Amino acid sequence: MLSTQLKQDAEQFIDEIYGDDFIQGLINEDISHASLIHYLQADALYLEEFANIYAMLISKTTSKEMMEYLLEEMRFILGGEVEAHEILARAVGRPYAEIIEDGEWYPSADHYIKHMYYNAYAKENIAFTLSAMAPCPYIYQKLAEKAMAQNVFQENHQYRGWFEFYSGNIDETADVMFKAIDKEAGKMNDYEIGLLRKNFRESAEHERRFFNMAMTREHWAEVDMNV
Amino acid sequence: MLSTQLKQDAEQFIDEIYGDDFIQGLINEDISHASLIHYLQADALYLEEFANIYAMLISKTTSKEMMEYLLEEMRFILGGEVEAHEILARAVGRPYAEIIEDGEWYPSADHYIKHMYYNAYAKENIAFTLSAMAPCPYIYQKLAEKAMAQNVFQENHQYRGWFEFYSGNIDETADVMFKAIDKEAGKMNDYEIGLLRKNFRESAEHERRFFNMAMTREHWAEVDMNV
Amino acid sequence: MLSTQLKQDAEQFIDEIYGDDFIQGLINEDISHASLIHYLQADALYLEEFANIYAMLISKTTSKEMMEYLLEEMRFILGGEVEAHEILARAVGRPYAEIIEDGEWYPSADHYIKHMYYNAYAKENIAFTLSAMAPCPYIYQKLAEKAMAQNVFQENHQYRGWFEFYSGNIDETADVMFKAIDKEAGKMNDYEIGLLRKNFRESAEHERRFFNMAMTREHWAEVDMNV
Amino acid sequence: MLSTQLKQDAEQFIDEIYGDDFIQGLINEDISHASLIHYLQADALYLEEFANIYAMLISKTTSKEMMEYLLEEMRFILGGEVEAHEILARAVGRPYAEIIEDGEWYPSADHYIKHMYYNAYAKENIAFTLSAMAPCPYIYQKLAEKAMAQNVFQENHQYRGWFEFYSGNIDETADVMFKAIDKEAGKMNDYEIGLLRKNFRESAEHERRFFNMAMTREHWAEVDMNV
Repeated sequence: MLSTQLKQDAEQFIDEIYGDDFIQGLINEDISHASLIHYLQADALYLEEFANIYAMLISKTTSKEMMEYLLEEMRFILGGEVEAHEILARAVGRPYAEIIEDGEWYPSADHYIKHMYYNAYAKENIAFTLSAMAPCPYIYQKLAEKAMAQNVFQENHQYRGWFEFYSGNIDETADVMFKAIDKEAGKMNDYEIGLLRKNFRESAEHERRFFNMAMTREHWAEVDMNV
Repeated sequence: MLSTQLKQDAEQFIDEIYGDDFIQGLINEDISHASLIHYLQADALYLEEFANIYAMLISKTTSKEMMEYLLEEMRFILGGEVEAHEILARAVGRPYAEIIEDGEWYPSADHYIKHMYYNAYAKENIAFTLSAMAPCPYIYQKLAEKAMAQNVFQENHQYRGWFEFYSGNIDETADVMFKAIDKEAGKMNDYEIGLLRKNFRESAEHERRFFNMAMTREHWAEVDMNV
Repeated sequence: MLSTQLKQDAEQFIDEIYGDDFIQGLINEDISHASLIHYLQADALYLEEFANIYAMLISKTTSKEMMEYLLEEMRFILGGEVEAHEILARAVGRPYAEIIEDGEWYPSADHYIKHMYYNAYAKENIAFTLSAMAPCPYIYQKLAEKAMAQNVFQENHQYRGWFEFYSGNIDETADVMFKAIDKEAGKMNDYEIGLLRKNFRESAEHERRFFNMAMTREHWAEVDMNV
Repeated sequence: MLSTQLKQDAEQFIDEIYGDDFIQGLINEDISHASLIHYLQADALYLEEFANIYAMLISKTTSKEMMEYLLEEMRFILGGEVEAHEILARAVGRPYAEIIEDGEWYPSADHYIKHMYYNAYAKENIAFTLSAMAPCPYIYQKLAEKAMAQNVFQENHQYRGWFEFYSGNIDETADVMFKAIDKEAGKMNDYEIGLLRKNFRESAEHERRFFNMAMTREHWAEVDMNV
């Protein structure tokens, strides 16, 4: 099963991200508001595109079951994940809606988003895009589970709800993606399977860059913007 | 308002389709099972693509409101319109699901479908595709209203439910489309507005061809299919 | 070889088109200027899109050889085929450039063009589009060869040059297409090969409709165009 | 004129790249073979996609003049730029064709390539893609001119030909792009012009990252690739 391999490939990235400053900052309640704000602004825009890409996949799939699943996921993203974001916004002490008024596709987020779009546009088989998307739900879930297993979050821990959200809710999302990837991989040659795996690993690396981007508050090179 | 013009453009097509054999056949309960089957097979496939094109539009719109509407429409099409189709299937005396097992994109349906896809793929602004889609809900509604106004359908009229379905349910669909078209047209030059209008009129003509296609049970030229 | 089958499939269409009024009209120098003008206007626009679709295929192919071929074909179309068109324009007695100032995608041409675009946009493998394109050069060549074999064209026959042009120049174009189709078909399953064959046959039928369109001077339904 | 602004925006990137290790390494003949090889491998793949994107633009433009230009550029890229690459390959002491047998879209090149593709796929107006492409010919030319103006390259300087190539050949390429961008910008609102400018600046930054990528021999995170 390709998905077994993909999950194995993800392990090193999960370990690294877990040890990086963003997740450790949440666990230890030691992360700057500026980094949380940068993350929220980037992630709100990332999720909008994630939902759009679901829409593109719907138009490419011929399976009614996959279509229904993708529709459900779109609804979830367009509405639901706000819950996890609200927790971070509360820690910052500003309304979520206000925080995300600003923000843009910062370089690492921009790369990640365009990686997904490239596959959605250029590849007919949705497995290529799904393997670029799957690291997002899968890695968040594994990070949250690991954090819950290795730490005791007190009732009043500011980010406890964030870890609870991701350890509980996303399981099925990654599962359906992996099932679809396995199904398509079953009809592919080694070269194509290699591309799926490469797409997955690149996105796992993008996940790491995305969290680190928030810590360095990464920006595009500044140029005077007066036209 | 462009939509006022579009509705006016639609009138002659509505009158012609109303007078053509398909709608008259339903009104007079004088239509062959073969034609109903041909229509159901073609329309089931048409609606699948209609839903897919909604998905493509979702990925192109930046308005959350439009996105929610398109999602809702997709759900309706993927589930709801079956109700109207069931009525025709009952008249045929065979289960709907069984009837639509066969069928393909017959020539006139193929042209209509590829007209919508062309706009969805080639045009960034969703108004071009919406103006190729709007005749479908709008003309069905107007045909049904006209039939209800000009005829008394007895309780046991086989197609009464079909006319009731379309006279009641689709109003909002066409309305949201027209509103979006008007909004985008407000930012367009005359040449682009001309394209919107042409897209709409062509689809109105496609609607007419689609109904007539069922009456002639139109097919692609037969060629021996043994590879 | 799939191409052997495709060529066999084309035979009935070639026979039918040969017997239809357009080709017979050219052979017998008995065709109206209005039909020639309609054909030239439609074909000039068709060839523009044909060249555009070559460009889309270039961006999809990874074979440098195929890329070079497609580039060469684009150049040929953007420049060369004018020669055949000039012959018809001379018969009409008006400059070609002036004749094609008007014209639009008349219904049958519109269907054919959107059939090719649908495949170019929706299908990653270029063989789907190539099999929708191949009937054009192949059928023109076969029609011209048949006309040359079955008739003696006097020196002063108005359309002699037209038949000479197509019997001589296009051989390689269709050949390269068929080779590419065969190569890709070799990696495809029966369902996909069926789609290739269907694409090809539909385009062969589109060729027939295109010539007949000129004879009936087919138009979209007239609507008052004053916005 | 937007292009005046774009050229001004490019200045700081040109200065920075000029001062970075890659260009200084060429000027001072002090750059490792490993970095040259990394650059050649990445750039060969980058240019393939650059040519593909030209093809996509051809299919989007309606101007015959722009089409001819794009065709010419494609030919140049598919054949010509090899000259500059051969100079670097000679310095390495291995055949160019052999050097580029390996290589992949390293992270910074991958980001740059997907930035261009995103615009080519998602945007109907070719100016968005052209403004993501223009920094490549423009910055190379300016870097080469600056190097030629500030240094005396001896006859036997290994990279003299490289600077001569780019200072002489690319002028027209950037010019035609800027002209097309200006023309389209003339019809755009401030928001769209802002996007053009952002696309341009991001690609200017991508140029800088691309050269630096060769110096660090940047790679994707290593994962055991045995499936």
